[in-house]
Amino acid sequence: QMPRGNLEAIHPRALVLSSVRKKLDNLQFKEAFTLMRKHRINMNLIYDHNPSVFLENVKTFIQQVESVNHFNLFLTDLQEEDVTLTMYTAAYNRFLPDPGRAANPNKIDTICNAFRVALCAQDENKYLLSILTTYVKKSTPQLGEALQLIKALRESNIKAQYVSAEEALTYLLFLVDVNELYDVAMGTYDFDLVLMVAEKSQKDPKEYIPFLNELRRLEPNYQRYTIDKHLRRFKLALLNISKCGDEHFGECLKLVKDHKLYTEALHLFNPSSSQYKEIALSYGNYLTERRSHEEAGIMYVKAEQWELALQAFKTCLQWQQMFFMTAKLGYTHDQEAELARTLAEQLKGQNKHTDAAILLEQYAKDIEEAIVTLIQGSQWTEALRLMYYHKRMDFIESDLKSALIDSYNQQVEILSSMKADFEKYTVRLAVVRQEKAKARQEFLEGGGNVNETDADLFSDTSSATGESIQSSRYTSESQRSSLYSNSTGRSSRNRRKAEHKKWKLKEGSPYEDFALISATAKIIHYVDSLRAEISSLLRAMVQFHYDEKAATLQVQYEGFLSHIEKSIPEIWPEETEKTNLNTVLGPDTTANAIARAVQQGQIVTTEEPLDPVIRVPPSLNKDHKWKLHALEQADV
Amino acid sequence: QMPRGNLEAIHPRALVLSSVRKKLDNLQFKEAFTLMRKHRINMNLIYDHNPSVFLENVKTFIQQVESVNHFNLFLTDLQEEDVTLTMYTAAYNRFLPDPGRAANPNKIDTICNAFRVALCAQDENKYLLSILTTYVKKSTPQLGEALQLIKALRESNIKAQYVSAEEALTYLLFLVDVNELYDVAMGTYDFDLVLMVAEKSQKDPKEYIPFLNELRRLEPNYQRYTIDKHLRRFKLALLNISKCGDEHFGECLKLVKDHKLYTEALHLFNPSSSQYKEIALSYGNYLTERRSHEEAGIMYVKAEQWELALQAFKTCLQWQQMFFMTAKLGYTHDQEAELARTLAEQLKGQNKHTDAAILLEQYAKDIEEAIVTLIQGSQWTEALRLMYYHKRMDFIESDLKSALIDSYNQQVEILSSMKADFEKYTVRLAVVRQEKAKARQEFLEGGGNVNETDADLFSDTSSATGESIQSSRYTSESQRSSLYSNSTGRSSRNRRKAEHKKWKLKEGSPYEDFALISATAKIIHYVDSLRAEISSLLRAMVQFHYDEKAATLQVQYEGFLSHIEKSIPEIWPEETEKTNLNTVLGPDTTANAIARAVQQGQIVTTEEPLDPVIRVPPSLNKDHKWKLHALEQADV
Repeated sequence: QMPRGNLEAIHPRALVLSSVRKKLDNLQFKEAFTLMRKHRINMNLIYDHNPSVFLENVKTFIQQVESVNHFNLFLTDLQEEDVTLTMYTAAYNRFLPDPGRAANPNKIDTICNAFRVALCAQDENKYLLSILTTYVKKSTPQLGEALQLIKALRESNIKAQYVSAEEALTYLLFLVDVNELYDVAMGTYDFDLVLMVAEKSQKDPKEYIPFLNELRRLEPNYQRYTIDKHLRRFKLALLNISKCGDEHFGECLKLVKDHKLYTEALHLFNPSSSQYKEIALSYGNYLTERRSHEEAGIMYVKAEQWELALQAFKTCLQWQQMFFMTAKLGYTHDQEAELARTLAEQLKGQNKHTDAAILLEQYAKDIEEAIVTLIQGSQWTEALRLMYYHKRMDFIESDLKSALIDSYNQQVEILSSMKADFEKYTVRLAVVRQEKAKARQEFLEGGGNVNETDADLFSDTSSATGESIQSSRYTSESQRSSLYSNSTGRSSRNRRKAEHKKWKLKEGSPYEDFALISATAKIIHYVDSLRAEISSLLRAMVQFHYDEKAATLQVQYEGFLSHIEKSIPEIWPEETEKTNLNTVLGPDTTANAIARAVQQGQIVTTEEPLDPVIRVPPSLNKDHKWKLHALEQADV
Repeated sequence: QMPRGNLEAIHPRALVLSSVRKKLDNLQFKEAFTLMRKHRINMNLIYDHNPSVFLENVKTFIQQVESVNHFNLFLTDLQEEDVTLTMYTAAYNRFLPDPGRAANPNKIDTICNAFRVALCAQDENKYLLSILTTYVKKSTPQLGEALQLIKALRESNIKAQYVSAEEALTYLLFLVDVNELYDVAMGTYDFDLVLMVAEKSQKDPKEYIPFLNELRRLEPNYQRYTIDKHLRRFKLALLNISKCGDEHFGECLKLVKDHKLYTEALHLFNPSSSQYKEIALSYGNYLTERRSHEEAGIMYVKAEQWELALQAFKTCLQWQQMFFMTAKLGYTHDQEAELARTLAEQLKGQNKHTDAAILLEQYAKDIEEAIVTLIQGSQWTEALRLMYYHKRMDFIESDLKSALIDSYNQQVEILSSMKADFEKYTVRLAVVRQEKAKARQEFLEGGGNVNETDADLFSDTSSATGESIQSSRYTSESQRSSLYSNSTGRSSRNRRKAEHKKWKLKEGSPYEDFALISATAKIIHYVDSLRAEISSLLRAMVQFHYDEKAATLQVQYEGFLSHIEKSIPEIWPEETEKTNLNTVLGPDTTANAIARAVQQGQIVTTEEPLDPVIRVPPSLNKDHKWKLHALEQADV
């Protein structure tokens, strides 16, 4: 039992709050403040109770409360959180931010700024410590401004009425670490400030005085650069050193390289200046190291480093730019031709025969090689154009015709083997699906009684079209963890990638059906992508009277395409989702079984979305008109 | 009540069948046949009972049954269907084709052939009528062979032992229409046969005799052509007239044109012959009429009709081939240049600036216009290459730089307006979805009691992520019919296309959410496709020192792309299917409600698959490295 005397001092918080709120509504800030201090009510409530009213009446608040200490107490207590939503919800009964009172993401900054303006208007000297507090309390503390204020106070001749500069600085150091403040002072480039702070610190005057004297002797920009570097403000250091002229450019460049400030540095110099070019050169070297050869080339061009630019563009096969460099470097025609040949070989290796042919024709002046290259690359129309242009139609007999036949044989062979694979996969897919459907049916007919060990099994069969349900395959660690983790979209995406790799075409592997679908999708994409190539081959063949072979190829390709089109609804049945539901909710199961499954969360939690490859058939580019009428009815 | 006597004659079919099957198994064909005739059992059973055994024992069957009439009865009764799967399922209890006994798609043909071989081996004369039946009964009746057999019989000196030629022909005419047989006889080009059949027909000898006499006088190939034309066998007619030489080529060409036998005709002549070229010309004209200009051009080339080929290629802008034609036609350089300029204009209209530039550079020899064209087409690299190649770097200042800025302004503007639209659509989508989820929830909380009028309503909400559920909008005829029709994959595909058109962006329209998703998908596709274009623009801008603008564009584009990436999981939530299930099967519904819904078929039958646009997010081409390092950190 408590002593009787204490009972008289009990104030139920709800009653106190109600009283505070009333006083705040009446703008009785003084009374409210006193009450809140006494009952340790969070000071943020003064603002949070009604932000707009408070902001309009900051002056009243200051006039009523008057005490510097009380202001500091209020300011240091500020938090970004809205206490009416957190601590005092019961009193305010608002669980969600009121859309009417817009959430202020900079509550503290807003109050500090408003307060400082009001305090200055009232009496800057009297409230100096509170003004300092408003600077320090900001989300990015304005320590420089605070220091300047103290400096001004010291320099002013007014006899300190309320507080001396000395006292103010002491108060500031109570709020901020002295070393931080020393750096801030240094960062203002104002040595008086630095000294003022240094004197208050534990620093040894024998150390900082010579350092400051040394700085004082430097040219202003270089002085600032030195300070910035000292403070590790490298971007500012760069800005200042860039103003120091040629003699310090070496240092500038070193700074740029050390801290990879290339883009910033390029902004600071005129593109026509030698400094700009030196920086661009360094940047180019840096980009070369990073293997960004194309961009390095552009930088070397800016640096007018033609040889380096040439090498960079050569490395990334950006051949179009290179002959500007060779001109600058004074290459002879022979040298250019040799370069062109080298490049052409590399471009052919990347299957860019059209580019290679331009190099050979225009730079190596080797028409024959250009034509042969185009033929090698199956660029029939362009090859013919070049033959016509240079009157070298002899290549039709010597090269083009045999190349057409080779290309024809190759396509026929590729299509045949693709077709065989496609057949194999679709047939096997039907078998696998049938087996799984059967296994699923047997399981459901077994009563669908889900016990602990069968849980995986059940959920897997219900979740996907045809995952293997042999439970022995489902005991791997990864499988289990993925089933039970309540994952977000992103992580389930990652998981799918991993699953992708788990799909194997091997007969009987757990995801064999997915692997089969994915493999058929690949074949479909490839075959569909052949349209343009086969179209141009057919046209060239017909022009040179290989009508019969062309007809064979057209019939074969058309047959394959229409076979694919017919197979798509079988490989990707539209009813995928429906089928799943049917197996669980179909007419063969009882209402009780469903209810039980739902209660155990079996249906809902395991409905993993399938990979798009499995869910959605590849779309065919049916608009491409590749067929020739002449090859359509070849039967006499 | 039936007369008593009849009861004795009742033979339960099952017993009879069992007896037949036993006799067939024992190869007692005679007994089986008699029994089957008596009890009107389908004769196909003799084969269907065990196809391979029957085919191995055709000889035994013939030796046992012996009667021509019985053979004819058996043969004429043959059907492709397997009666053990249709009529006599009960006795055989096979509902599916036995994979062991391969389905024979040509059952009748197989039996007829086997039978004929066996009959001929046995006694060709004796079984002549049955042999005729095997010819007639084939899927493509071999009436010619049948007639030849009768002709041979008539010409043979053997005194007809069993049947005369006359009788055989009468029998044949009993099986086949006389006019058909007359045409078949004519088609053998054998006038004896024609006469033989004609005599049996109602035809007037005063008509057919002169006609036959006239035919007899013709040169054999022309005679055959005339007959084929008479019989409307145009492909054969073409083959025969093609052998008739130049004097009849006019008729040949007419036949080709009248019956569009171009491809067949081209096969029949040597590509170097004048006839081939004339046919190719006609074909070219025909293809031109069909607006297949490219293929027409190829035909005109085969026909060596250079002017026509030129026009055809010009119409379809296949410019690469055209200068072969102009060379053949002896165009002057000026004429070629003019043609090149015309084509270049057209190609520019189709946004094919690179092609246009080649024409201008190489054929019109107008370097300046070529460079300007490349700049217009934003082909910066190729434009620069041409400038370097022709030492016309003055275009950099005069044209390229301002074009870069124009292009930059355009891209910035397009991206801004697209971004605004994208924002608008996604914000609105969230609102629409929320509204629908709320409406759905309210509906479910109402108890989910499904009555007649609410059926649509309920099924729609469960079937899709967010179709409008205001029932007044669901009364249109098309909607209802599509909901109730049990459609195949194809027709539901078509329906989806129609639905696509029904999606409207208008606020409150029934499929507004689908329209919004589809609109965002379009924006995503477009923005994603800009990578290459923006990449090359950025590189050109940096090279010419527009680093700051380039950085702006890079930041804007990058921001949009990452915004899109972040929005995709919101627009296409992975849980689409899961959500649907939750609304029906979630914890808020009772087991009874689910069971009722399932019993009424509400859940299962309406799980319509959604359009892929709605189900699957567009994939971004993230592999394309378009960004420049130099533009990444632009803040100093």
